[in-house]
Amino acid sequence: MSSNEILASIKEPGQLHRLSFLQMEKLAGELRTVLVDTVSRTGGHLASNLGVVELTIALLHCLSLDEDKIVWDVGHQCYSYKLLTGRRGRFSTLRQEGGLSGFPKRAESRYDHFIAGHASTSLAAAYGLKRAMTLRREPGAVAAVVGDGSFTGGMIYEGLNNIGKSGENLIVILNDNEMAISRNEGALAKYLSVIRSKPAYFKIKKNTEHLLLGMPVVGKPLRDLAWGSKMALKKVIYSTTFFEELGFAYLGPVDGHDLKSLCDVITQAKAMNCPCLIHVRTQKGKGYHFSEKNPGMFHGVSKFDAASGRPLSASGENFSEVFGKELLRCAEKDEKICAITAAMEHGTGLQHFARKFKASGRYYDVGIAEEFAATLSASLAAGGMLPVFAVYSTFLQRCCDQLIHDIAIEPQHLVIGIDRAGIVGDDGETHQGIFDAAMLSMVPNLTLFAPANYHELRQMLRTALYEVKGPAALRYPRGAEPASLAGWQGDGGAYDMVGGPENRMLVVTYGRTFAAALEASRQQDDISVLKLNRLLPLPVEAVRAASAFESILFVEEGIRSGGIGMQFLSALEETGYRGTAKLHAIDGFVPQSTVPSALHRLGLDSEGILNCLSRFGGEMSNFRKR
Amino acid sequence: MSSNEILASIKEPGQLHRLSFLQMEKLAGELRTVLVDTVSRTGGHLASNLGVVELTIALLHCLSLDEDKIVWDVGHQCYSYKLLTGRRGRFSTLRQEGGLSGFPKRAESRYDHFIAGHASTSLAAAYGLKRAMTLRREPGAVAAVVGDGSFTGGMIYEGLNNIGKSGENLIVILNDNEMAISRNEGALAKYLSVIRSKPAYFKIKKNTEHLLLGMPVVGKPLRDLAWGSKMALKKVIYSTTFFEELGFAYLGPVDGHDLKSLCDVITQAKAMNCPCLIHVRTQKGKGYHFSEKNPGMFHGVSKFDAASGRPLSASGENFSEVFGKELLRCAEKDEKICAITAAMEHGTGLQHFARKFKASGRYYDVGIAEEFAATLSASLAAGGMLPVFAVYSTFLQRCCDQLIHDIAIEPQHLVIGIDRAGIVGDDGETHQGIFDAAMLSMVPNLTLFAPANYHELRQMLRTALYEVKGPAALRYPRGAEPASLAGWQGDGGAYDMVGGPENRMLVVTYGRTFAAALEASRQQDDISVLKLNRLLPLPVEAVRAASAFESILFVEEGIRSGGIGMQFLSALEETGYRGTAKLHAIDGFVPQSTVPSALHRLGLDSEGILNCLSRFGGEMSNFRKR
Repeated sequence: MSSNEILASIKEPGQLHRLSFLQMEKLAGELRTVLVDTVSRTGGHLASNLGVVELTIALLHCLSLDEDKIVWDVGHQCYSYKLLTGRRGRFSTLRQEGGLSGFPKRAESRYDHFIAGHASTSLAAAYGLKRAMTLRREPGAVAAVVGDGSFTGGMIYEGLNNIGKSGENLIVILNDNEMAISRNEGALAKYLSVIRSKPAYFKIKKNTEHLLLGMPVVGKPLRDLAWGSKMALKKVIYSTTFFEELGFAYLGPVDGHDLKSLCDVITQAKAMNCPCLIHVRTQKGKGYHFSEKNPGMFHGVSKFDAASGRPLSASGENFSEVFGKELLRCAEKDEKICAITAAMEHGTGLQHFARKFKASGRYYDVGIAEEFAATLSASLAAGGMLPVFAVYSTFLQRCCDQLIHDIAIEPQHLVIGIDRAGIVGDDGETHQGIFDAAMLSMVPNLTLFAPANYHELRQMLRTALYEVKGPAALRYPRGAEPASLAGWQGDGGAYDMVGGPENRMLVVTYGRTFAAALEASRQQDDISVLKLNRLLPLPVEAVRAASAFESILFVEEGIRSGGIGMQFLSALEETGYRGTAKLHAIDGFVPQSTVPSALHRLGLDSEGILNCLSRFGGEMSNFRKR
Repeated sequence: MSSNEILASIKEPGQLHRLSFLQMEKLAGELRTVLVDTVSRTGGHLASNLGVVELTIALLHCLSLDEDKIVWDVGHQCYSYKLLTGRRGRFSTLRQEGGLSGFPKRAESRYDHFIAGHASTSLAAAYGLKRAMTLRREPGAVAAVVGDGSFTGGMIYEGLNNIGKSGENLIVILNDNEMAISRNEGALAKYLSVIRSKPAYFKIKKNTEHLLLGMPVVGKPLRDLAWGSKMALKKVIYSTTFFEELGFAYLGPVDGHDLKSLCDVITQAKAMNCPCLIHVRTQKGKGYHFSEKNPGMFHGVSKFDAASGRPLSASGENFSEVFGKELLRCAEKDEKICAITAAMEHGTGLQHFARKFKASGRYYDVGIAEEFAATLSASLAAGGMLPVFAVYSTFLQRCCDQLIHDIAIEPQHLVIGIDRAGIVGDDGETHQGIFDAAMLSMVPNLTLFAPANYHELRQMLRTALYEVKGPAALRYPRGAEPASLAGWQGDGGAYDMVGGPENRMLVVTYGRTFAAALEASRQQDDISVLKLNRLLPLPVEAVRAASAFESILFVEEGIRSGGIGMQFLSALEETGYRGTAKLHAIDGFVPQSTVPSALHRLGLDSEGILNCLSRFGGEMSNFRKR
């Protein structure tokens, strides 16, 4: 492919102002080459980044990053921005331990103004940044780039509602690529597809005429374009009132791969000096054959062969798949079962369920709207159905209040499948699933299970569906079951004990780290392992069983403060335990790396557990077994 | 006033079908009399309930509650519904201990289908209920009554987006009373006021013509009305596309106090058998002189004199007021300070700040949008401002993810004033502020203070503003400081100890229950009290100080599981404490009652504390002071 001469010459973003359209087009090609090349080696978000190459170039060409600010919703599309804002040299470290983040990060660059990772926050971010600029009498506009997927999240509307009246020079760029992570759901998607079906030109509504007319030369060609066809303008008044009624000047739709049009419309929006919404049509995966053909598969990818587009490692069975297939089996026999996802059909293994039950209305993809998903699950249950809401641990944080208020107070019987629980790896701080157990601890009437392998996941899903009263949740990690636990079976009770009471030390743990604890117990004598199968309500019988041991180490792949380990130690304290107990858990946010590396760094592998145990030493002398 | 003959005759809601308009008008008057009379004696939501009397009657007249279902967003307006669905006899127990809830409650009536209390959940509730009916092949429509205030919350849009495409017979009634709890904020409010300014008739958009024309007789007069003025219709197409673009047939605006129009439009909407939005204009506080004049004051009221409209007890100083005034003092000297509320200007004491700083753009009422408020606070901080977000404890649950993701990962320095922390009383389960401390426990990088009186609140607010790095929060209860703590001053450190180390027992607590613990220590010898001023990070020095005592009782006006007490006992266990420690906290949802009664029932008054302490008995024998 082509050499990187223009990209290599960009030391700071201001240089883009001086590029010609020809040069910018060449730069777009160079960026795409680097994107495919790097992401094929690091994994990451490819299709979304390929879609916004021209948009990123146009933004940096038209805006001045010395005063203007850009925020990226979710951050799935910020790679070109990183490459053009002084991070090209480190780009090969993307998503690696100690390397560049796959998301915007303030610590990484003065051009990253706000954290991103979860969806629909960008308007709140942009509004606060812009208001602060105004209050501090600093010049400049703020632009927020938001995918159509994020537009299914309520925070975007809360943003539109607040920004629309502000009069601020805030440019919302709706990056409409006709799909979110899963296919976009809902009425808005339908509406956008109506606008989209028209030819790609951009138009300005009547009530912004005076703005256009009162503007310097830059507006002239646009003005002519806009007034070119009266009929077209009329149609626009019909189809764009949605955003205009919220107080935004609407510009679009514009072809997101046409640099000239993009630059015109961005310049226009900045000059209008009021809240603007630019509707940009992009093609997800643009410019790379395989991702153009299958943008969904290339949304978030593991390492792949750039020449063939094939993944480098075969993706075998994993917890999500096992969950999805078992749920399908249950649902085939029980027509009360419904499944709900917030735009994560494939990620949560629900594609099997969707294929089979979408037509009959038992499958719900509600968009990136976890709050709505949680309350919808509760009301389906109230109406006599048996809903199963599958969601990543990190996104479950979004519906904390709905869990308490809508699900638990008048306890609804439903099941929550908490996928990606624990360390998730290279997505880093924003996506680690380390808070769910602590968060659910405070929710009354809720039962939480922690399967450690596929067998337990299947078994506990059935228990959750048919034996628990009220809300039940299961938490399971990203990826595959630990090889050493394949086929492992316990008693099926609230906890399992491995090793006899003759041992002096006990490791208490749950979920994936059970494998590490078992391994530690094999490497050293005198260690028994207690595995919690049910975390909430905490089984008192497990606490009683533990208190027969002289030393207890609670190991938790989750946040320390407020987590299950604290519950366990607190219960030990209350029962008057006279041995020594320590808690070994996660103490803050966990940066990106591979999962094994993170677990090792956190001391959550067998080596880390043995290290902790060694510290017990001879501390206990007068402990008496009861 | 008039007798209650019609109301008294209503034993079940089906009877309303047979009432004439004249009878219904009389019934409206009777309901208003009961509402004013009862709420003046119980306290509660008055203005919002007075506003929907005719709407409630019309719904029950036109819908059949044997198959149709009605849900009430927030539930601030369900009193007439309660009176007409078999709960008239118990209505005088409203919001009293053991009495009727001020909100919809499934346990209370088969006509209450889903819990409410927090805003913007009704569309998710209605959608799930309706989908369940469809899947179970049950007939009937579902109506959701939503105030314009709730329309500022993102979950409503998530709902519109999902329902719009469903084709379900789901009727959303926008109860537009031109104000939420505070004055409604945002572009949508502006937009509604434009529609509102037109004469009160209702209209149907062109693309629903075929529905109308294909309908039985009931539609005829409406059809004529709708097609009466082409000009009017044209205007409507412009002004109603907002909802129609989301997939709803729009009907309105209709006068919410005109029973005939209401009945017409509701019958129409049910017959259309598709998602409909009925825009109803109501007057908040309608029919009672004093609440008409001042609907805001009569939104949520304490007992008052019905004849004069005056409150029965003078509302003196309280934590919210002290917070608001101190914040104002700080902000007068520091122009970086901004204040943010989610539609709770008066409730959080921010009215002083608003009056002074609204014009200069340092005050933000974002609507009922806690998620947006939290992220806006973070981005204002990222932009160099010093934001203070004041919010009720129960509503802070709404922004759990924003606290973790937007505020804590790249820690922003801002302050959260957590009002109504702890037991709030007569609003009951949905509104108790018992989860904030447990929820914040898991948030890294966050500092949490618990002032027990006004002096500490002022002091800790300044500490949070100027001495803490990263996010800081203060939690303080509803109402006034305990009289016994007025003027009480500690060391200003992370904890205070009252009573010497010579005592055998120690009560550890924080916030309001410090008064009860002090009282207990006065009533019985041998008790010291440790008061935590900072809850997070938990001060290790307090744990060390506590471990000198033979018996420790941690008393917490908050949820037990995952709360601060568990942290404290877990820390004691880890330090190898050899005494006896017990945790006394709240174990589940707390039903409505007065605050003192709830505290007594929960054993969180001095009597309860002494009871707990008595259980320590002679348990400890071989404890050695270090």
